[in-house]
Amino acid sequence: MREFILRALKSKTSPFDVNDLANAGRMDIVCDCISTALFTASDVRKDTIIHVILEGPSYPPKTISFIGNQLKNLDYDQKSIAQAINIALRKGINLKLNQDFDFRNGILVSKKSFEHLVKEKVKNSMLVYLNKHGEDIRAQKFQDNVTFIFGDYIGMPKKTEKLLERIGAKKIRLGPKMLFASHCITIVHNELDRAN
Amino acid sequence: MREFILRALKSKTSPFDVNDLANAGRMDIVCDCISTALFTASDVRKDTIIHVILEGPSYPPKTISFIGNQLKNLDYDQKSIAQAINIALRKGINLKLNQDFDFRNGILVSKKSFEHLVKEKVKNSMLVYLNKHGEDIRAQKFQDNVTFIFGDYIGMPKKTEKLLERIGAKKIRLGPKMLFASHCITIVHNELDRAN
Repeated sequence: MREFILRALKSKTSPFDVNDLANAGRMDIVCDCISTALFTASDVRKDTIIHVILEGPSYPPKTISFIGNQLKNLDYDQKSIAQAINIALRKGINLKLNQDFDFRNGILVSKKSFEHLVKEKVKNSMLVYLNKHGEDIRAQKFQDNVTFIFGDYIGMPKKTEKLLERIGAKKIRLGPKMLFASHCITIVHNELDRAN
Repeated sequence: MREFILRALKSKTSPFDVNDLANAGRMDIVCDCISTALFTASDVRKDTIIHVILEGPSYPPKTISFIGNQLKNLDYDQKSIAQAINIALRKGINLKLNQDFDFRNGILVSKKSFEHLVKEKVKNSMLVYLNKHGEDIRAQKFQDNVTFIFGDYIGMPKKTEKLLERIGAKKIRLGPKMLFASHCITIVHNELDRAN
C-alpha cells in the first residue's frame, strides 16, 4: 500500500467557506494533495491512502483519511474534495481523542495527532520524508508498504523532524527545486509507477 | 525557454463564475496547469511561459499567455488564477483574429488558434507532445528552447496529432499511467530541473 501523510499546520478544523479555500488555512493545498494522491486521468488509485492532519482552529487535531480502494462518489476537483472535508469536519466536531467516524465511503475522520499516526504507521510501513540532504528517490528501492510524509507550505517543525529521525524514517530528495506538496506526490507516484 | 501549450477544448471564452470552475469547461484543470507551470514552493519560474488555448463558448479561440519573467502580482492558487483569466477574457472579447492585448503584468490575451501558435513556436523551439508510444522522457536530451504540448481531459483531436507529426513534433512518454495535464507538467519540470 502507498500511503501519504500531509501535515497542514494552519488548515481549519471547523467548517469553512468552500469558495475561499486559500483563507481556510490554505485548504486549497490540502485538496490538491488529496486529488493528486488518489486520481489518475482515468482512474482512482486503489493502492493508495492519503491522511491529512489538520491543525488549524477550532478543533485540532483532525485526521481525515481517504482510502483509494473504498472511495465512492468523490470527484477529483478542489471544490468537491473541499466539500467532503467540510462534511467530515462537521461530523467530527465532538470526537474524543483517538475516536473516529467512518463514513463508509472511503473517508474516515478521527481526532488523532500527527505523532500518533506516524507511530502507528511505522509498525508495518517504510516511512519516508523529504529532505534536501536525503538520498535521490531514483536511487532508492521502496518496500510494498511505504508511507511518504509531507509538510505544508510552512514546512515541518524541528521537533517533528527529530521524531521522524528517532523512529527511523528515511530521508529522500526529489530534485533540485523546492516544490509544493502536491507536486511532490506526483513525482513519488511516477517513480513508484515506473518501478512496478 | 521552457514553454507549455495547453489546448482546452471546452473551457469557456466568455467570463465565468470563479466559484464554479468545474462547470466553466473544467477551468480548474486550466488553472492547475498554469500554477504548476509557473510556481515552485519558493519562487516563480522565470524561465517558463505557459499558453492556454481556450476553445469553449462564446468567443473562441482565445490564447492567454503567462510569461514567468514578467509576471506581477499573481498568486498560485486556483481562484486567483481564475480571476486573472476572467479579466483577460473580458478585455479580449472584441479582439480580431491574431490581435492581442498585453496587460504588461506578464499576461497577454490574443485571438489566436492552437494551429497558429504551434506553427509560430516550431520556428525557434523544439516541440514535444505526449504519446504512450513515444520515447521515455528520461532517455531524451532537450534543447534550451523546448515547448511541451498538452491536451485537456478530452485529449488531442486526431487532426491535431497529424499536424504535430507533420511539423516534426517529438513524441515522449512520462511513465506507465495516464495523468492529468498538470501532473505531466510537474514531471516535465522535474526532468528538466535535474538536467540543468
